[in-house]
Amino acid sequence: MIVEKSYRTLGGTLLAAGIILAGLLNVSTRAEAQSARPNIVVMMADNLGYGDVGAYGGSRAPTPRIDALAREGIQLADFQVEPNCTPSRAAFLTGRLPIRSGTSGLAAPGTKTGLAPGEITLAELLREAGYSTALFGKWHLGESLERQPQFQGFDEFWGILTLITPASAEIPGYHPKFIRHQDVLQARRDQKPIITGKLSMEYRAEIDRDMTIKAKDYIAAQARTDKPFFLFVSFTNPHHPVLPHPDFKGKSGGGAYADVLMELDYNSGVILDTIDKQGLRDNTIVVWISDNGPTTYSEPDQNGDSGPWSGELGSAWEGGLRTAGMIRWPEKIESGRLSADLFHILDFFPTIATFAQATIPNDRPIDGLDQSDFLLGKQATSNRDHTIVFYNQKLTAVRWHQYKFLKVAHEKEHSILYPPTELPLPQIFNLRMDPKERHNLLGMKGYAPLLRQYYGLVGRYMQTLKAKNGRTGKKIRD
Amino acid sequence: MIVEKSYRTLGGTLLAAGIILAGLLNVSTRAEAQSARPNIVVMMADNLGYGDVGAYGGSRAPTPRIDALAREGIQLADFQVEPNCTPSRAAFLTGRLPIRSGTSGLAAPGTKTGLAPGEITLAELLREAGYSTALFGKWHLGESLERQPQFQGFDEFWGILTLITPASAEIPGYHPKFIRHQDVLQARRDQKPIITGKLSMEYRAEIDRDMTIKAKDYIAAQARTDKPFFLFVSFTNPHHPVLPHPDFKGKSGGGAYADVLMELDYNSGVILDTIDKQGLRDNTIVVWISDNGPTTYSEPDQNGDSGPWSGELGSAWEGGLRTAGMIRWPEKIESGRLSADLFHILDFFPTIATFAQATIPNDRPIDGLDQSDFLLGKQATSNRDHTIVFYNQKLTAVRWHQYKFLKVAHEKEHSILYPPTELPLPQIFNLRMDPKERHNLLGMKGYAPLLRQYYGLVGRYMQTLKAKNGRTGKKIRD
Repeated sequence: MIVEKSYRTLGGTLLAAGIILAGLLNVSTRAEAQSARPNIVVMMADNLGYGDVGAYGGSRAPTPRIDALAREGIQLADFQVEPNCTPSRAAFLTGRLPIRSGTSGLAAPGTKTGLAPGEITLAELLREAGYSTALFGKWHLGESLERQPQFQGFDEFWGILTLITPASAEIPGYHPKFIRHQDVLQARRDQKPIITGKLSMEYRAEIDRDMTIKAKDYIAAQARTDKPFFLFVSFTNPHHPVLPHPDFKGKSGGGAYADVLMELDYNSGVILDTIDKQGLRDNTIVVWISDNGPTTYSEPDQNGDSGPWSGELGSAWEGGLRTAGMIRWPEKIESGRLSADLFHILDFFPTIATFAQATIPNDRPIDGLDQSDFLLGKQATSNRDHTIVFYNQKLTAVRWHQYKFLKVAHEKEHSILYPPTELPLPQIFNLRMDPKERHNLLGMKGYAPLLRQYYGLVGRYMQTLKAKNGRTGKKIRD
Repeated sequence: MIVEKSYRTLGGTLLAAGIILAGLLNVSTRAEAQSARPNIVVMMADNLGYGDVGAYGGSRAPTPRIDALAREGIQLADFQVEPNCTPSRAAFLTGRLPIRSGTSGLAAPGTKTGLAPGEITLAELLREAGYSTALFGKWHLGESLERQPQFQGFDEFWGILTLITPASAEIPGYHPKFIRHQDVLQARRDQKPIITGKLSMEYRAEIDRDMTIKAKDYIAAQARTDKPFFLFVSFTNPHHPVLPHPDFKGKSGGGAYADVLMELDYNSGVILDTIDKQGLRDNTIVVWISDNGPTTYSEPDQNGDSGPWSGELGSAWEGGLRTAGMIRWPEKIESGRLSADLFHILDFFPTIATFAQATIPNDRPIDGLDQSDFLLGKQATSNRDHTIVFYNQKLTAVRWHQYKFLKVAHEKEHSILYPPTELPLPQIFNLRMDPKERHNLLGMKGYAPLLRQYYGLVGRYMQTLKAKNGRTGKKIRD
């Protein structure tokens, strides 16, 4: 809230968020533990489905590097995310439900929507705790200056601010006059960005290669400093338009999407190799995740695969909400562990904060749960037994153990294209009995106690939305 | 053909198939290699879906023993079967397309249908090559005496002959007068069976436990002989009615189906432990497979999961045709190998024959391909680039590399209940681009060469149906 006000009063001069944040953070034990703090490398795929990589049963393309990474740490079989790019990235970086920060829906291109500047991001938290921070790739949390990554905790940013779909002559009824490409930007902390290129259809096929090289250089540079670092590589693959880098075109024998999966695997491998080569493997936490489930509404060769789950992104069908997620920290997180416990993308915020010995803000509701003891094997099970999804400002779904409650029904294969239906009572599915969500249990024997559980959870969250800083985004949403 | 005639002329006295078979088999190198021959233990689940076990991305129930087995040998990610119990078991035991042997559809209970007695089964082949042979569990290849397992190559048989669904008071409109339970039978080679029990609904929950104990005792007994053995454990789980053994009821926390998966995993573990305990691990080939994909047409808690594939058993949708399959042979088959190569249940016949140094019949078309070099790592890829499915006497599907051709369209979630539609031209799907078979490529750019490939393959098989012994089943099918 303070930060938000600062932006408004100071206008162009923009007070650095860190100055205010310092007051919120406990810094007492920082110096002593500095040397032991792990580096954090996050690789995020865009719209990758649960069934797209081998480690999750996919057989569309060989993905040996990602599969090996899954075995080298913990592989999450029940990794939950938000239904779309903007909300999922907001949840990851704030540990708070997107509805709190004005990000419960897609930040539409060309608008002033996005993450409320008053939110405290993981990058801010880690920078405040002594980390160097960098984002290479897609942001999609707001285009206006105060919402750009370099004002949200990142010392360095290179990439694009919004949707990764370039203008194309292939769109029906094309006229060259309407083609305007998105800028590829570069920026340093608190500075206006400079334009380094344009996201043309041609460059779309090459941008992931370039961000991988930047990540590689960044890791090498950081290895020569004493500071730990937080590197967020936000790939554009395998999001449509599915355009493999020329080196990967036709390589899989399985079409463009499979080519792009191989490219994503290769780029992930380059980053993993760099970590090893720089001698950072043991003290680097590697997080490899997707932001949400795949599309199925796009053209035939442009879609990911949800694996055993049904539905697509932009809905709360399990295919939209459950995707690939794995975490490696050699010697700390046991290798070869496949966990079916619930883990939400929200949980990275407090969990990484704990690993980095940063202090979690206490002036606002934090929805993420600290899963550090679970990951370290100090406790057998995850701290999480439920999730809740508010999407496009509406209560959409609740998960409780294996039960799934859908308050908004989306068309299964065209969730984004067709209007959703708000239901008077939620549909109830048992994901262990019925992974494809075909048998609504509402009205069947014994459903009432499940409904009671649902309303209890919903009521609890509704209360927290009214708490102090419960919704920073509501007021500033354009 | 000779065997068939023998049965007809000798009537009740029934000439042992082995006497005739001896003439077809090459026995020259048998004695020398006897000691080195591997035991063969086949565990077959009934209606288990691709997505039901952890090794294939399932998270319905913990299946640690099956998952470990998958890692200890080769796990087949593209293991193809026939769409139903009878055809798939016929394909497994004969290496021939079910349409050749009168088994292209379900052997209906109470009829004289089933595997043509003139077929040469894997059990006959192995017995002739010096193996002891036993089947415990479900047969479903014919109920008439000459079609029973003890006349089809098995020295010992204990189990049931047809569908595993007992009569039940729970069927709507129940009247006790119509309840008649199937016999549980025991038989020794060439002898009439004796009735050891009845497959009541209560016993249905216990039969897998009993067959596991019989398998355990059999392995222990065989370990004390010099003969190699072929043990076929044909589980009834997780086929509906989904009835966990009392020891497993409620154990998973995920409902009856998940309980039954845990039971199946446990029973598989008992057999694997017995192999170890008897010191047979190194020279025993363990095959663990399902016969076909899961049902989705049954009651909500009675269905398996097809994982990333759509559709159910009784159809040629990928969910019906692709299921779990793994093979372990320590020191011979490399462990930790996950292969996306095509492998058909037909291929076990010639492949196991090669491993057992038995000779493959040369008086008839054999559709299975010898995959021994592929499994042993002597060649990098599978010998198979296509499959063909004749179901209920009709050409139903062709697979060629990642392309799938459907000549008969089944309703996706109720394949068995609704009438199929024969199509004038096949639907064409690319399984690597479109695992869920949503985008028919027929009529799209570049489809004609695919169609040419399809017709070429179909024509080739149609020719072999007219060859000598191309169809033994046609003439004797009731």
